[in-house]
Amino acid sequence: MGGTTLKLLFSTSLTLPKWVALGAFFYSKGGVYMPQVAIMLPNGTVEKVDRESKESLDALRQVAALLLKAALQDQFKGIRLGEAVAEEDQFFVDSDKDNQQVSADELEGLERAVKKLAKENLKIELVKVSVDDAVKAVEGDQFSSELLKENAEDGQVSLYKMGDATILAQAPIMLYANLVKNVKLLSVAGAYWKGMSSNPMLQRIYGTVFFKKEDLEADLKARQEARERDHRVIGNQLDLFFVDPKVGAGLPYWMPKGSTIRRTIERYVIDKEVGDGYEHVYTPVLMNLDAYKTSGHWDHYREDMFPPMDMGDGELLELRPMNCPSHIQIYKHHIRSYRELPLRIAELGMMHRYEKSGALSGLQRVREMTLNDGHTFVALDQIQDEFAKILKLIMDVYKDFNINDYTFRLSYRDPKNTEKYFANDEMWERSQSMLKAAMDSMGLDYYEAEGEAAFYGPKLDIQTKTALGNDETMSTIQLDFMLPEKFDLHYVGEDGKQHRPVMIHRGVVGTMERFVAYLTEIYKGAFPTWLAPNQVNIIPVSDEKHGDYADDLAREFRAAQLRTVVDHRSEKMGYKIRESQTQKVPYTLVVGEDEVANGTVSVRKYGEKDQVSMSKQDFLDLILHDVATYSRED
Amino acid sequence: MGGTTLKLLFSTSLTLPKWVALGAFFYSKGGVYMPQVAIMLPNGTVEKVDRESKESLDALRQVAALLLKAALQDQFKGIRLGEAVAEEDQFFVDSDKDNQQVSADELEGLERAVKKLAKENLKIELVKVSVDDAVKAVEGDQFSSELLKENAEDGQVSLYKMGDATILAQAPIMLYANLVKNVKLLSVAGAYWKGMSSNPMLQRIYGTVFFKKEDLEADLKARQEARERDHRVIGNQLDLFFVDPKVGAGLPYWMPKGSTIRRTIERYVIDKEVGDGYEHVYTPVLMNLDAYKTSGHWDHYREDMFPPMDMGDGELLELRPMNCPSHIQIYKHHIRSYRELPLRIAELGMMHRYEKSGALSGLQRVREMTLNDGHTFVALDQIQDEFAKILKLIMDVYKDFNINDYTFRLSYRDPKNTEKYFANDEMWERSQSMLKAAMDSMGLDYYEAEGEAAFYGPKLDIQTKTALGNDETMSTIQLDFMLPEKFDLHYVGEDGKQHRPVMIHRGVVGTMERFVAYLTEIYKGAFPTWLAPNQVNIIPVSDEKHGDYADDLAREFRAAQLRTVVDHRSEKMGYKIRESQTQKVPYTLVVGEDEVANGTVSVRKYGEKDQVSMSKQDFLDLILHDVATYSRED
Repeated sequence: MGGTTLKLLFSTSLTLPKWVALGAFFYSKGGVYMPQVAIMLPNGTVEKVDRESKESLDALRQVAALLLKAALQDQFKGIRLGEAVAEEDQFFVDSDKDNQQVSADELEGLERAVKKLAKENLKIELVKVSVDDAVKAVEGDQFSSELLKENAEDGQVSLYKMGDATILAQAPIMLYANLVKNVKLLSVAGAYWKGMSSNPMLQRIYGTVFFKKEDLEADLKARQEARERDHRVIGNQLDLFFVDPKVGAGLPYWMPKGSTIRRTIERYVIDKEVGDGYEHVYTPVLMNLDAYKTSGHWDHYREDMFPPMDMGDGELLELRPMNCPSHIQIYKHHIRSYRELPLRIAELGMMHRYEKSGALSGLQRVREMTLNDGHTFVALDQIQDEFAKILKLIMDVYKDFNINDYTFRLSYRDPKNTEKYFANDEMWERSQSMLKAAMDSMGLDYYEAEGEAAFYGPKLDIQTKTALGNDETMSTIQLDFMLPEKFDLHYVGEDGKQHRPVMIHRGVVGTMERFVAYLTEIYKGAFPTWLAPNQVNIIPVSDEKHGDYADDLAREFRAAQLRTVVDHRSEKMGYKIRESQTQKVPYTLVVGEDEVANGTVSVRKYGEKDQVSMSKQDFLDLILHDVATYSRED
Repeated sequence: MGGTTLKLLFSTSLTLPKWVALGAFFYSKGGVYMPQVAIMLPNGTVEKVDRESKESLDALRQVAALLLKAALQDQFKGIRLGEAVAEEDQFFVDSDKDNQQVSADELEGLERAVKKLAKENLKIELVKVSVDDAVKAVEGDQFSSELLKENAEDGQVSLYKMGDATILAQAPIMLYANLVKNVKLLSVAGAYWKGMSSNPMLQRIYGTVFFKKEDLEADLKARQEARERDHRVIGNQLDLFFVDPKVGAGLPYWMPKGSTIRRTIERYVIDKEVGDGYEHVYTPVLMNLDAYKTSGHWDHYREDMFPPMDMGDGELLELRPMNCPSHIQIYKHHIRSYRELPLRIAELGMMHRYEKSGALSGLQRVREMTLNDGHTFVALDQIQDEFAKILKLIMDVYKDFNINDYTFRLSYRDPKNTEKYFANDEMWERSQSMLKAAMDSMGLDYYEAEGEAAFYGPKLDIQTKTALGNDETMSTIQLDFMLPEKFDLHYVGEDGKQHRPVMIHRGVVGTMERFVAYLTEIYKGAFPTWLAPNQVNIIPVSDEKHGDYADDLAREFRAAQLRTVVDHRSEKMGYKIRESQTQKVPYTLVVGEDEVANGTVSVRKYGEKDQVSMSKQDFLDLILHDVATYSRED
């Protein structure tokens, strides 16, 4: 905090218990002595906690953040400092040094400085000072000033203080800075002040810290593994997509390669659904707000919706958060007969949901998304067959994407609290037993979750595991008794009378955004041939001598609908082959003198070391079979 | 105006010239006597005008509207009346009778009542009354009251009065109601009060009127012709799409059949463009408003844009009115080298434009649209080749859609007012001559329009004629020197230095909405086989005996990617064949005993009378050739 001395209104340095100075404690647990450490709480009390506990690790991250602040103040005079936070699994400090970025190269030097400071083991104390004094001490640093003012109570702020550096006292802190040994500064990234894109962008330096060296090493290894699978990292390496908060937080731009993957999936899904009896439609992304009042979304879901637009002529338009009311319009456009049921409406429907900017992440959590959505309208007695048909479609699709690790979760209403659900006992009883019967007749294992149904009907969720081991609901089949009621839907039965249909919401692969994020992670970016943006990369040994042959091949392959590129650059062949592997192209073909002479190709399949020579036709047969079978492993 | 007598502050009945009573006038034009009629102006003066003139026809429509008001008041006691307007080519009266619709069946009776009233030839006079009296006279009719109040001046309103009926005196009116003989009430439709969807919906009755019987007949014939081609009418008959102002004015819902046509076009266009070197992308429909401030759209185009949405975290998001800034993001995402140019970015980009609700029409004028958009980034010396390449693509695509009637319009800057344009003389001169040279080298005729270029660069528009004979710009190629400047785009040249690219905006088929509207009209709904929603309709002579064979055929055809339906209904065969024609299915197949026995099909092509018997394989060859050649006439 600059060179100004703070006038202390209160300081723990006078009141710390004597045992703190000892620095190491043990307690006996079943005869084993467990190490303990002293931490200080924001109220000034000092406690001994188990060194293996979560509290002690949190406090260690807190002191590491304080050390990083001190190191930044030391290394860059006049640097302005934003938030310094210990998170679930890391810590970070935001800073701004005259609009110059702290570069990744500087992290190592900073890390050394943190470790050096840690060794000095300066006294850490809790101080209370007047907010005016504190703000004066950080003159010229508008970020620190603002944080201090915001956190003042009765004109005072509580800070942890170590030499000239301070950090807001909001969580417990480790009392021994010298325990910060196994620390690593991880990365630097931009972060808007207060998370608002209209504010200046600061630099956020992330770090991780552990008591034991082996814990740090394990953590760094896990981070490396996660990074290798992280769809944001791979998306950047393979140039699949990007998000730029300056032009729109949570609004991804799909680059040509990512777009090719997405388009291939979209066409596949549409063709599959049309073949399965769905009628694909296009409906507007905007709708009169009244429809969402009717559907109940505006009452129950408003905070996830975008702000309505006043069209100036009495119309309030809303970016749709769901496609159901749109498909209901399609249903209602005609008088429907029992002969038309099940009526299956599907769409790649673009939707918008308001997510807090802090929750946004790559393609995984976005504000604009395109859902592989569908609604089928059925008579009550058609539920079981239709449910089974949808489930079969989902499992077929999973097979083509080589998704094998999934489980079923069937959710019923809570039999003890039936009044909490849409009131129609017969519907619930019949439909729940039909869903169960369908699962049983298909011989599937499933988990039954009583009380986890939606208000409007029972459902099946299909859970997959992400590459990082998290559970994710990929697909869902949800019965809905309520919307047909709210929108007053009917069909004319065989008896000539009006009946109410049941609506089934179903999603096969979810949103294009989340599905591509998921696939990127499970494939580690090595998309199977049918999905790969470039399926064949032809490298002529000498562009001058074999470039024409490469082009001829490319023409022929493209005519066979294969996405083919030729690498004409004047780089070394080894470099080009390596790059083709880095870009995870399924088939790299090297063509030189022999190949030109014999009309053959030398084929290197992604991930394999061997290069195999074969005739052009054999290669075509091979790759076309690969595409046609979705590169499945069976 | 009810039964209340109005206290006249002024009436022309006292001051009309005596000659008016004569009713017929002639004047000599080069020795020929031309009939004249008397019309009254809103200021009370009376004039003789040529009966063939536009003024007399306008005044005739005005008196017809007044007669229709009178007839409505007579026939439906207590009816409320909205606007009564004489338009360019028709007249209409809005009304509301206790929320009951005036049905199409009632039009005939109303028309008779209008004609009967006309024969009575009641005196028409201009009156001035106090607005309070006038409002009192229409008690219980909130629409008439509101109109009277809005049109009051100094507490008085001017009305044309005929018996108890009145109409606002805003345009000249015919003085002889008995000239309304050749009148036809055309249709009834819903229209929001004041055109605002939050207001009640009234019934709008349209009519047309002429002096001569043959003029009315010609008009009705032209209307019939227009209706037969009107994409809204065909769209309804073939169930292609609908628009419902209650859920969103100008926001079309594409029904399954319309969606199939659109999807086929979209896939065709994308494949064509990818084959031509374009990189297809997906970019968000929302963007930070700042981007449109940079591009200049917000300054110059704001009234065509949707209202921005305040995201509550400092971000203002805007539904994009154009895709250019989005594609610029794609360009800017990497440092570009001269080796990458021309860089061709394309997208089926959804955009939103604010159009007044009165201007909206079917798929032709909408508020949400998907543009077949593309931007290529070139070095200055690449303009000519790239321009020619784009033009060739456009002409290829036209050929596949059988669009043959189009002209070229090349727009330059005004050489006398060069200061009105983006300032770079060299760029203008070189690029204009390159465009001209490209047209010449392709041997194309074109019209040169000096002074019709955009501010930012010269352009080529390709004009087609709609089925109704209107000119329409289908495709465009526009150079843009300005946006690369505003967004500070560059590429690294062969010299290692930074250069500014030129941007070319290009659209091949325009928006999906307008293109499908256009195709529907030129094809009169009979889409060529490759676009037809259902390509083959199989009708078994007896469903019991030949239904299975029909299903087998359908399976085989579907496996060959042909959109095939089987008509299993128990309707008469003649009815089913006629309906297949009405639905304009390209191939109707009838299968009976002979066909089952010989494995043949009886084929009736749309629009042809003959039914031809052929083997299944011959039919497959025939239709697959038809699809593959886009049913072109060449």
